[in-house]
Amino acid sequence: MPKPAGRGPRNPTAERTERKPREERWAELLQVATDLFYEKGYDGTSLQDIATRLGMLKGSIYYYIESKEDLLFEVVKTVYEDGMAVIRARSAEAGDPLTRLRNVIAGHVEHTCRNLVATAVFLHELDTLPPQRRREALGTDHAYQGVFRGLIEQAQAEGLVRSDVDPRLAALSILGSTNWVYRWYQPGGQMTPTEIGAGLADIAIGGITAHAASGRPAPQT
Amino acid sequence: MPKPAGRGPRNPTAERTERKPREERWAELLQVATDLFYEKGYDGTSLQDIATRLGMLKGSIYYYIESKEDLLFEVVKTVYEDGMAVIRARSAEAGDPLTRLRNVIAGHVEHTCRNLVATAVFLHELDTLPPQRRREALGTDHAYQGVFRGLIEQAQAEGLVRSDVDPRLAALSILGSTNWVYRWYQPGGQMTPTEIGAGLADIAIGGITAHAASGRPAPQT
Repeated sequence: MPKPAGRGPRNPTAERTERKPREERWAELLQVATDLFYEKGYDGTSLQDIATRLGMLKGSIYYYIESKEDLLFEVVKTVYEDGMAVIRARSAEAGDPLTRLRNVIAGHVEHTCRNLVATAVFLHELDTLPPQRRREALGTDHAYQGVFRGLIEQAQAEGLVRSDVDPRLAALSILGSTNWVYRWYQPGGQMTPTEIGAGLADIAIGGITAHAASGRPAPQT
Repeated sequence: MPKPAGRGPRNPTAERTERKPREERWAELLQVATDLFYEKGYDGTSLQDIATRLGMLKGSIYYYIESKEDLLFEVVKTVYEDGMAVIRARSAEAGDPLTRLRNVIAGHVEHTCRNLVATAVFLHELDTLPPQRRREALGTDHAYQGVFRGLIEQAQAEGLVRSDVDPRLAALSILGSTNWVYRWYQPGGQMTPTEIGAGLADIAIGGITAHAASGRPAPQT
């Protein structure tokens, strides 16, 4: 369970008087902040809005964070780290690089479908964080892209991917195709997250392993 | 050139006293609104911010629009209609459905690269518009997706696309891959819009015309 912005309780007495355990309250606070940032935008959400929905006094929120920005930081960091953990684990499994890429794509799509609101906040509000805090939340630049790209490069080295494929462009194409799910996936809709993940993986893998059957020839690069 | 929210001038005298022609001022107003909605978010931008950057009195903005929402409506409508015009024109050109799909993809990517800021505002703030105005701006639902999907279905009917490809999922995959460009394209970067469009089209076309060479078998659907 995530900890509040790496700080200790500001008022140890308050902790004893709360009805719910501190970590449960923190998880609720993060969930409500995620929902409100999604519904009203980060700029349109006040700490008072968050306190009201939680049924807390606004002053009590300062027990967990110092500012609204701390909440956005935690929302962004949590969904990013969870997603990275999913794709890193899948990437490290046994199998040839294309099989692992397929599993990474499926895992990423399933994670996105199950974290739609947090993913939307991440994608829409990431740039609201000051650069320093963005780096703190995400670590190295392009780590996500790097997992996809690394597998494509390995597959290309093994002759599984066409030699004219640009691994960076292919990784960005796959990231776009899979991240986009956050805009159209509907829980309980006509496809399950597993079916969407498998279907997008088929299309993505086919797009880099095969030659186009029609249309203009590929550009000389 | 777009016209202000379908209304006539509210104060004909004001028009005569402006230094710049009314339509030029309107285009500037739209541009500044687009930039500020991008930089500060729609909720974080006031009409006063827009007036200040334009060097206008806030009251003068009401000569063009009735509310901040009118500005978002125009920004969204303009970039959407321009993009639709590009892909509809490419889709109507001569050639087999896959060649036309390739040209539609390339055209969409180039349009996105050349309208990065307006595209970002469109994608991030569309849901801020009330449903009625969203429908007014966009017309029929899924028209964009429909152009891609229609070409994929035609190509499939002609045997150019694998029979196990779901045209809706393939259209959404291509839209994601191509729309995503708004997040990573850098003007003056290592690839031109034309190169990105051609590269993403190759990957997209390859993904639906070819069988995956490796990885798990495609799911039975």
